Amino acid sequence: MGREAIHTEGESMQVMRVAILGFGTVGQSVARILVSGKGGLQLTRVFNRNVERKQVGWVPNTVDWTENIDEVFTSDVDVVVELIGGLDPAGPWIQRALMEGKSVVTANKQVIANDGGRLSELAAVKGVCLNFEAAVAGVVPIISSIRNGLAADNLHRIRGVLNGTCNFLLTKMSASDASFDEVLAEAQDRGFAEADPSADLDGVDAQAKLSILSAVGLRRPINPHEIACRSIRGVGRLDFEAAGLLGCGIRQVSTVELTEEGDAVRAEVGPAMVNLRSRVAQVSGNENVVVVDGISCGEVTLIGQGAGGGPTAVAIVSDLLAIAAGDGAPNLFPSVRSSYQVGTMGRRLHYIRVPEPQSAARILSDLGVEATRTLKGQGGQVQFVTDGCTTEAVESALKLDATTRGNRAENYVVLPIID
Amino acid sequence: MGREAIHTEGESMQVMRVAILGFGTVGQSVARILVSGKGGLQLTRVFNRNVERKQVGWVPNTVDWTENIDEVFTSDVDVVVELIGGLDPAGPWIQRALMEGKSVVTANKQVIANDGGRLSELAAVKGVCLNFEAAVAGVVPIISSIRNGLAADNLHRIRGVLNGTCNFLLTKMSASDASFDEVLAEAQDRGFAEADPSADLDGVDAQAKLSILSAVGLRRPINPHEIACRSIRGVGRLDFEAAGLLGCGIRQVSTVELTEEGDAVRAEVGPAMVNLRSRVAQVSGNENVVVVDGISCGEVTLIGQGAGGGPTAVAIVSDLLAIAAGDGAPNLFPSVRSSYQVGTMGRRLHYIRVPEPQSAARILSDLGVEATRTLKGQGGQVQFVTDGCTTEAVESALKLDATTRGNRAENYVVLPIID
Repeated sequence: MGREAIHTEGESMQVMRVAILGFGTVGQSVARILVSGKGGLQLTRVFNRNVERKQVGWVPNTVDWTENIDEVFTSDVDVVVELIGGLDPAGPWIQRALMEGKSVVTANKQVIANDGGRLSELAAVKGVCLNFEAAVAGVVPIISSIRNGLAADNLHRIRGVLNGTCNFLLTKMSASDASFDEVLAEAQDRGFAEADPSADLDGVDAQAKLSILSAVGLRRPINPHEIACRSIRGVGRLDFEAAGLLGCGIRQVSTVELTEEGDAVRAEVGPAMVNLRSRVAQVSGNENVVVVDGISCGEVTLIGQGAGGGPTAVAIVSDLLAIAAGDGAPNLFPSVRSSYQVGTMGRRLHYIRVPEPQSAARILSDLGVEATRTLKGQGGQVQFVTDGCTTEAVESALKLDATTRGNRAENYVVLPIID
Repeated sequence: MGREAIHTEGESMQVMRVAILGFGTVGQSVARILVSGKGGLQLTRVFNRNVERKQVGWVPNTVDWTENIDEVFTSDVDVVVELIGGLDPAGPWIQRALMEGKSVVTANKQVIANDGGRLSELAAVKGVCLNFEAAVAGVVPIISSIRNGLAADNLHRIRGVLNGTCNFLLTKMSASDASFDEVLAEAQDRGFAEADPSADLDGVDAQAKLSILSAVGLRRPINPHEIACRSIRGVGRLDFEAAGLLGCGIRQVSTVELTEEGDAVRAEVGPAMVNLRSRVAQVSGNENVVVVDGISCGEVTLIGQGAGGGPTAVAIVSDLLAIAAGDGAPNLFPSVRSSYQVGTMGRRLHYIRVPEPQSAARILSDLGVEATRTLKGQGGQVQFVTDGCTTEAVESALKLDATTRGNRAENYVVLPIID
């Protein structure tokens, strides 16, 4: 695993041969860094479908271009950089590379979230590395910080803004008069949101990243689908006005924390009203933030760009350099999943918007709590802040009211208030 | 170097024996983490003067307490944790430990800033490690992030709030009506400032930390004394009022950056007016922040507690774990110092406070610039913002005016304005 001595100047350097699978924006950025010369790393192979249309002149002609994946696995490359994305065929290809005794560096959050434990064990068995700094929060060096500078502490909470698309949309809405649909269209035009933005907006992307952080940071691997999740769709202008009055920003927030007893985790992804003093509210555009809380270290915050070719490539190539230096990760996942529950957050304040005054009264009565603050809505809508209750209880009460009154579910909004 | 296999479960674990030199607040916090059981690390020796009064019951009785430093060097310990502080005897003791083939983990910014290059080379020659995450910005994992998650990028600027004492004083003054002396007295009472706070207030502490970041992050080792430095003494209530009007906070800011040609660095430590939108203004109390700028990664920010037993101990023990896992640092310093200049910052806006109107006119005339904004001072004082000029030019002009008019130098304040 790894090549010795490449960081020791004056000695002969052993070269680590690198193959890139997928030559899109990130793949090209990785190649540019490798071609510019990074001690001991040599790009030797690029795989892509219809690879001919991908070939570029600035890559040395010693690089083999191929659309035959088997050629990569049977070649002499030491490390495979997987940038295909998605579960299939990326997952099987990562496994195949590890089986062939090649280390893997990937930005693939879905494969790592769903299968990272098994693949990491396989890497350990084969004596190679599986590194995935780029899979979570782009260039933010959160995995390396958990493994290194914070390794001595026991972390009990990880919270962050992990999806740059949601953050772009929400901070853009906050700063303008545009509607959700207008801002989404702009984001799609500018390449900040995909044609089908569901995975970003509805939280599937953040669920995967949070499940990786739970495994690596809290030593509690959890299935991404077990994480309670709400979409940011439906958040509207009135909610941003309310946020301003409450001294909050609206963010898609991902949180995973140990229970006090440490025998279970609580996890969620979804839009929330965040106090502007919180680090989580202090990122805008496509920035990501991760705030970890440790028993000894207190709160440590990392902020950086969550996407883009350059930042993602830095995370990828830094993983490659770690492997070359013998500091790669044989197994970042805890090897055994102990028996613990994945629950939801406890009671807390909520901001709620409902389409008519009767709904407000009914919902408060259902929840058995008081409104601590009521704001003037528009067109009969009512916005209010509840006393402590659970998000699930609020969601049930909203759903019941919508059904009873024949209202559309989209006209109800609930946002937990986070300090 | 390092012990293999201690992270591989199921195999027999080799133990790394640790000695602590200096059993103060940080030493005790390190011992607590080690005693609580961290894979493969065993506390076997504690050195302190008059060690008897330091002995505590919660340390296992297998630990040897000693006030004879030679016993540590001739013992079988694998790693020495140096927490004595200061240049002497800490520096010679670190050297002696490395000579004896023992790795060293230290929080000693002065030794590393002044002699880190030579000691790191010695460590490399002896095949051991010299790690110092705790020497800069407490628990903020900046050294490990530079070495790992950001290793692939070329950084061109590092800026931060590196001194928790200054930050406590300045943010406290900003939030209250207290004078500098009152806030300093409170900080000393609460243990946030030393009886002699000169090293913190006058920038010597931050100079050392910044010189380490220049070496490790920009690959440009510089002598801490080469860094332009201004004290925070003299900053007063009127300056905080002006900061409020200008949308700024006042912080002790440390900056080191490469020149555009890359052949020289510019570096400074001192109080500045910082735009509230800047990450550097968004830390309060004893927090530290480090913002790195890379060619590919853009701006990456790390925030955490800059001091205190727990946070510092996390940085120390994380270094120990890295060494135990074989990921320690044989040489974080560039081995050869190339020929480059250490300069000061270029032209920029400055906020200036002077004791009388005639001073303002004279200084602007000397500098050959206009005041872009003038604020009402108190008792004849004038506060104004200049067009772009260098800090050294402003300092010369202020000094000349003070001498000419027989005014005290403390009645003049200059703060560069940082975005």
